[in-house]
Amino acid sequence: MQKVAILGIGQTRISEHWGKSLREIGGEAAFAAMQDAGVDKVDALFVGNMLSPLIDSQNQLGTLFADWIGLWRQEAVKVEAACGSGAAAFRAGLMAVAAGEVESALVVGVEKMTDKAGHDVTAALATAADADYEAEQGVSFVGLNALIMQRYMHEFGWKHADFAPFSINAHANAMHNPFARLHQKITTERFEKSAMVATPVNLLDASPIGDGAAAAVIVPLERVSSLPGRPRVVVAASVAATDTIAVHARKDPLFLMAAYESARRSYEMAGIQAQDIDVFELHDAFSIMSALSLEACGFAERGQGVRLGLDEEITPKGRVPICTRGGLKARGHPVGATGMYQIVEVIQQLRGECAETQVDGAKIGMAQNIGGSGATVLTHILKIE
Amino acid sequence: MQKVAILGIGQTRISEHWGKSLREIGGEAAFAAMQDAGVDKVDALFVGNMLSPLIDSQNQLGTLFADWIGLWRQEAVKVEAACGSGAAAFRAGLMAVAAGEVESALVVGVEKMTDKAGHDVTAALATAADADYEAEQGVSFVGLNALIMQRYMHEFGWKHADFAPFSINAHANAMHNPFARLHQKITTERFEKSAMVATPVNLLDASPIGDGAAAAVIVPLERVSSLPGRPRVVVAASVAATDTIAVHARKDPLFLMAAYESARRSYEMAGIQAQDIDVFELHDAFSIMSALSLEACGFAERGQGVRLGLDEEITPKGRVPICTRGGLKARGHPVGATGMYQIVEVIQQLRGECAETQVDGAKIGMAQNIGGSGATVLTHILKIE
Repeated sequence: MQKVAILGIGQTRISEHWGKSLREIGGEAAFAAMQDAGVDKVDALFVGNMLSPLIDSQNQLGTLFADWIGLWRQEAVKVEAACGSGAAAFRAGLMAVAAGEVESALVVGVEKMTDKAGHDVTAALATAADADYEAEQGVSFVGLNALIMQRYMHEFGWKHADFAPFSINAHANAMHNPFARLHQKITTERFEKSAMVATPVNLLDASPIGDGAAAAVIVPLERVSSLPGRPRVVVAASVAATDTIAVHARKDPLFLMAAYESARRSYEMAGIQAQDIDVFELHDAFSIMSALSLEACGFAERGQGVRLGLDEEITPKGRVPICTRGGLKARGHPVGATGMYQIVEVIQQLRGECAETQVDGAKIGMAQNIGGSGATVLTHILKIE
Repeated sequence: MQKVAILGIGQTRISEHWGKSLREIGGEAAFAAMQDAGVDKVDALFVGNMLSPLIDSQNQLGTLFADWIGLWRQEAVKVEAACGSGAAAFRAGLMAVAAGEVESALVVGVEKMTDKAGHDVTAALATAADADYEAEQGVSFVGLNALIMQRYMHEFGWKHADFAPFSINAHANAMHNPFARLHQKITTERFEKSAMVATPVNLLDASPIGDGAAAAVIVPLERVSSLPGRPRVVVAASVAATDTIAVHARKDPLFLMAAYESARRSYEMAGIQAQDIDVFELHDAFSIMSALSLEACGFAERGQGVRLGLDEEITPKGRVPICTRGGLKARGHPVGATGMYQIVEVIQQLRGECAETQVDGAKIGMAQNIGGSGATVLTHILKIE
């Protein structure tokens, strides 16, 4: 792949934006990224979104945003891979630039989820699962994760409180991120007393939905030879991989095969190993997913992902810093936007803009975005060059 | 763009496939394309679909189909641009191959629309329009086209019967296409007496919805140097362009600016002019769109697209053959699949496989797929090389 650099990034705070429309939210992040990049136009727009047909009665978001942002006549398209839509749009943008089809691309991940009642959102999120063989049977998305977590605890002998460090770390880091949805420190005690959602997943195991958007401007590397006072961030690897869409169809539902495959090929492409990653923005939609992601990506042995949390290895000062801006858990999870938030956050780390949660000397960062219960996985490795 | 060739094509008959699931319909076309290409695996899958979240409660179609087809662990993603989704997925696949990211890609356009009641489908199709400023006001998708047609007739002095040749040609050609939805010859008299849908659009101005899928396998050109007994079809141009999403926001609602822009840049990329096109599969969702597309793409003066039909120039033996396999009007319009049907049909023409509706000596074909009322337009020029 031709080398691609990130010229600018932007994001909106994740919240319940009842006073703003879908296009206003996405536009905010898009304009912020273009301003950060110092450009007032781009050749093409790639939008990541999962739920706008169901929640906002709106399709064709590529063109909706091209129109709103003022990219008249330019190419625009929407990419969807459930909660992996943001990174999937990023990869589509990368390929357009790498193919030489466009000289610059704007990628926007956007989602507006809070205009509907909770049960409507739950039903909409279930479209990430297998409609015929999972959702039709009445299992919700949190239900699937609960089954996986239950089995994991049984198989490897962990208790629920052992997952607390994942949520505590995420909430602690989000305190310093002005764009985060939740600004509340939590403790193990509060984690344990939180309301049950689907046994054993309780409210503090689960990431909150929200309205939000994050964006980036990408260009061929040769266009950014001389950025004053800012390190040059390039894409060292971009790999998408898939697993079965239904969890029950997997030989081993406790191993994220697509995450493994996607990370493995990313390391190969970047010419590095897992231990070279300075910061890892993983897809902690539920606390169990943090454990499984760490294992699949080579940071922990099978069944031992939880140990990294208990040993305080996942904080910004630890060996494997994750969720440094709050993760899905506390920064929030506006599903189709999440992948772009992760990429923006890795770039903030590489630029050294994270103050209290800065990972010292971060040079290589990884963002991993997951659609469904490990069904679609996109891994991006970004580095300073 | 690195040169890309089409190795194989496949399609299912468009119909009311109540006995087949979404994945079975898409799988049929995918397997047919892979068989035609003589391959049993590909590196990546690109799916074009518009309505599965709304009609089938299913998102993440990339992974759904990768799983169903047996492309385990491979990359997969869905692309959406309303009724332009099929060609948008084709272009995404092209860029992946052209970027050198994958060695082969399968593109599937698929839609299953007939499992819901008509009013649900009408509401779902309205998500192609501007939800806030068009659909919210109660205007349906056919309503928008009716307003455009009414204005066109007023502005240029045509009467409704003048549009009859578009539908008559489409129905006549579909008689010879086993994959077409409708196999009924029609006359000007029947066209005029057809039930009114939204004045002046009647039932025979409008394309029928349906369930269907069409697919293609694409590879770098150098992989297909020696196909026995079959011409080598390459992509000579691929261009996406956009207009405002809302029709009322356009300076001139009777000019398809994105179609013009997309065609103009395609001709430039392919090094040809409009008159070099031997066959043109255009997006005749409504008869008015045939006239406007012919005008925007340089085949007729403003307001004179209708004349080409009246002069019998649009038949397979005419100067500008369109809808040679039935077009959206009679082959059918399973929205997110349509763009791939158009591409498959152009390739059938270039291969000389169209018997009764074969365009003699067809060497260069164009497929133009439109999302919304001219909002997203993708043009592909394919040729024998």
